[in-house]
Amino acid sequence: MERTKFILDEKDMPTQWYNILPDLPEPLPPVLHPGTGNPITPDDLAPLFPMSLIMQEFSPESYIDIPEEIQEIYRTWRPTILHRAHRLEKALDTPAKIFYKYEGTSQAGSHKPNTAIAQAYYNKKEGIKRIATETGAGQWGSALAMGCMFFDIELKVYMVRISYDQKPYRRILMETWGATCVPSPSPDTKAGRDMLAKDPDCPGSLGLAISEAVEDAATRDDTHYSLGSVLNHVLLHQTIIGEETRKQMEMADAYPDIIVGCIGGGSNFAGQFLPWIKDKISGKKPDLRVICVEPKAAPTLTRGPYTYDFGDVAGLTPLLKMYTLGHDFIPPPVHAGGLRYHGMAPIICHLYNLGLIEARAEHQMATFEAGVQFARTEGIITAPEPCHDLKVAIDEALKCKEEGKSKNILIAHSGHGHFDLAAYDAYLSGKMVDYEFPEGKMKEALASLPKVPGS
Amino acid sequence: MERTKFILDEKDMPTQWYNILPDLPEPLPPVLHPGTGNPITPDDLAPLFPMSLIMQEFSPESYIDIPEEIQEIYRTWRPTILHRAHRLEKALDTPAKIFYKYEGTSQAGSHKPNTAIAQAYYNKKEGIKRIATETGAGQWGSALAMGCMFFDIELKVYMVRISYDQKPYRRILMETWGATCVPSPSPDTKAGRDMLAKDPDCPGSLGLAISEAVEDAATRDDTHYSLGSVLNHVLLHQTIIGEETRKQMEMADAYPDIIVGCIGGGSNFAGQFLPWIKDKISGKKPDLRVICVEPKAAPTLTRGPYTYDFGDVAGLTPLLKMYTLGHDFIPPPVHAGGLRYHGMAPIICHLYNLGLIEARAEHQMATFEAGVQFARTEGIITAPEPCHDLKVAIDEALKCKEEGKSKNILIAHSGHGHFDLAAYDAYLSGKMVDYEFPEGKMKEALASLPKVPGS
Repeated sequence: MERTKFILDEKDMPTQWYNILPDLPEPLPPVLHPGTGNPITPDDLAPLFPMSLIMQEFSPESYIDIPEEIQEIYRTWRPTILHRAHRLEKALDTPAKIFYKYEGTSQAGSHKPNTAIAQAYYNKKEGIKRIATETGAGQWGSALAMGCMFFDIELKVYMVRISYDQKPYRRILMETWGATCVPSPSPDTKAGRDMLAKDPDCPGSLGLAISEAVEDAATRDDTHYSLGSVLNHVLLHQTIIGEETRKQMEMADAYPDIIVGCIGGGSNFAGQFLPWIKDKISGKKPDLRVICVEPKAAPTLTRGPYTYDFGDVAGLTPLLKMYTLGHDFIPPPVHAGGLRYHGMAPIICHLYNLGLIEARAEHQMATFEAGVQFARTEGIITAPEPCHDLKVAIDEALKCKEEGKSKNILIAHSGHGHFDLAAYDAYLSGKMVDYEFPEGKMKEALASLPKVPGS
Repeated sequence: MERTKFILDEKDMPTQWYNILPDLPEPLPPVLHPGTGNPITPDDLAPLFPMSLIMQEFSPESYIDIPEEIQEIYRTWRPTILHRAHRLEKALDTPAKIFYKYEGTSQAGSHKPNTAIAQAYYNKKEGIKRIATETGAGQWGSALAMGCMFFDIELKVYMVRISYDQKPYRRILMETWGATCVPSPSPDTKAGRDMLAKDPDCPGSLGLAISEAVEDAATRDDTHYSLGSVLNHVLLHQTIIGEETRKQMEMADAYPDIIVGCIGGGSNFAGQFLPWIKDKISGKKPDLRVICVEPKAAPTLTRGPYTYDFGDVAGLTPLLKMYTLGHDFIPPPVHAGGLRYHGMAPIICHLYNLGLIEARAEHQMATFEAGVQFARTEGIITAPEPCHDLKVAIDEALKCKEEGKSKNILIAHSGHGHFDLAAYDAYLSGKMVDYEFPEGKMKEALASLPKVPGS
């Protein structure tokens, strides 16, 4: 019998996160203060984040110990399983071996709790009693609600109003875990009130929700702000995924030739591939291919310029060196809401710029075709975001068949699609459409890129 | 560090199901033909079920080998994890040790695939190309859709129309796995057409959906019928749960003092406790307590008489000796749809009648209170049905605290509540109500109990 799953015992769960910063062949471009153009300092970030997370953002250490309190919570669902997709391989009649590391068994259904737990812990340790955050469709808000529940921290989530109204399930998840969730714009902040005065029926936007959460955190001493992707410390916490997978691939006696994953802000995929890419940087596995998959509706790496931009739509963050479609760019409404982001984690952008990783953009209908094929072979219903991984993994496996090569393909599967079945319905009933990339809108958005002071 | 999870490697997955029939202290009362009053024979069941399943229904063997083809599919998600609920114990400040065997990580989110896979396999092996079944809220229909997908069998699901309209997510699940799902009453059967002629807006009922599925199977040579609970062979397939748990409790160096689980048709809980109750029957663990939890809205064991009744609302099945509220009884609309059944698996009824197991009935609001406490300690969002387990487990743990006794409590947790969040919303927003048991309706339903010919 060939193994179907590679299961780590909880006593073999990695006890350190991997930090790529000291192993980068060139240092990461600094994050800049939008007012001065100077690199930001830890103190600049102190009003919003606990100092321990800020220090992780800049850390020179290759490995950072995971505190026992975080490990204890991780162990309620981790280590997660590495699966071998025997049935998909057979359906494709490919000589490739396909593995997928599946993060869908966390209580929130995705990888997001890996950082939510850590962020809640470090805030708690610094005496913070309350966190404010924003959420679009609710994936991040629900993961942080779970994280705050575990550490008894009050959480207020500003949820984009149109999602609040149309997608009640994620809101109920947050409330079940004890968080307070309000539709944004809300009457609870000045930003919200101003908008409501102008337009009482405003459907909200992620940019506005960020403004509300940041205002909330900045105006209350007991409150911090929290972000679910993009930043170095978020990617750091997600490396538990790749560190586990390294042990599991060893159990499988296989080393990946190709690693594929979708990127929105980039934290899930980076969490998987960063612990491997160091082998490419060091020359131990020079031919390792890492393929980032983005939606054609928001093709950041494949179409955007590499430049300084704000991380958020409202222009409140420091300036990050990123591939960007412009912080004003609003992507078409594809179902993969987690990939509808104008920028990308600076670490991923830097590695892409150095030619160490690849990128590919896909239309959503092709990704759902792959998702249905996966559901009908492996059984798992995949969220719209990791359906992008599946599309590229299947393409690569078919290429292996053509070329008669047996390669090891590793998929960074970030979670299940139990809350996304309306998207499958749209696909199966022929109501789904693809969106051409709105070139003109990007050009318009890029025209309003911030000028770096002094440059 | 105390362990949080007890994980079996897939090579240690049990390879046999446990059959209680030969170990019963008294034989199970026979199933009777409603026309003759004689015990039914395998031939009577042959038009609807494959002979291998029929033989399992009557098997004298204590252990039945799980075919390798079924094991192979089981291994896509099994063995499931046995958790220790450290955080719940701490919140309750109890000396009890609480364990829960969690079936929510199957691709369908519950225990149902354990039998769906097996039934699909045996039908396939007998050359059956198509199966018809009914489903209420969609739990069974989606599990069988997954089972049929794995063995390339066509599946038609007759789904109660009001659920079809109000709960589209389970329907989409079925379709994603490739099944056809129609609202019942449908124009595809005589039973459906007759009802539509009388009432084109008929919301449907489980009884009518069964009639449609049975008619479909009985009138087509290539088609069989399939049932998701109640019957002996269904309980047999579910014993993989308890067989795994026995190995895992050994890893934990603990033997359960109390096992709790909810019962609708009884298959999940029987799957857990049957492999343990044999130790009570044999005298090896005479003080083992097994507590069946039912909703106060459908208190079959705690309120019904032990008598012969039809298994279905329409009166199409053979006569089963059961505790029953009468096959005409329609339980109040509690959220735990899987527990809204008038009867109970004959094996469970027999054990209850022999005094080997206990039963308790709970109101739904108290079970959701327990579900929220579980979500806010262990993180997992529990389906409304196993919320009943949690209520009783918490009560027993608090009793341990009162009495200063450390007992091992084992919960048969059947699955997640990702498709049931509207129920949590109702509870959290104060809109949930409890239903008093409709005594009068039961009396009316019992008045129409079938007369056993010749008795």
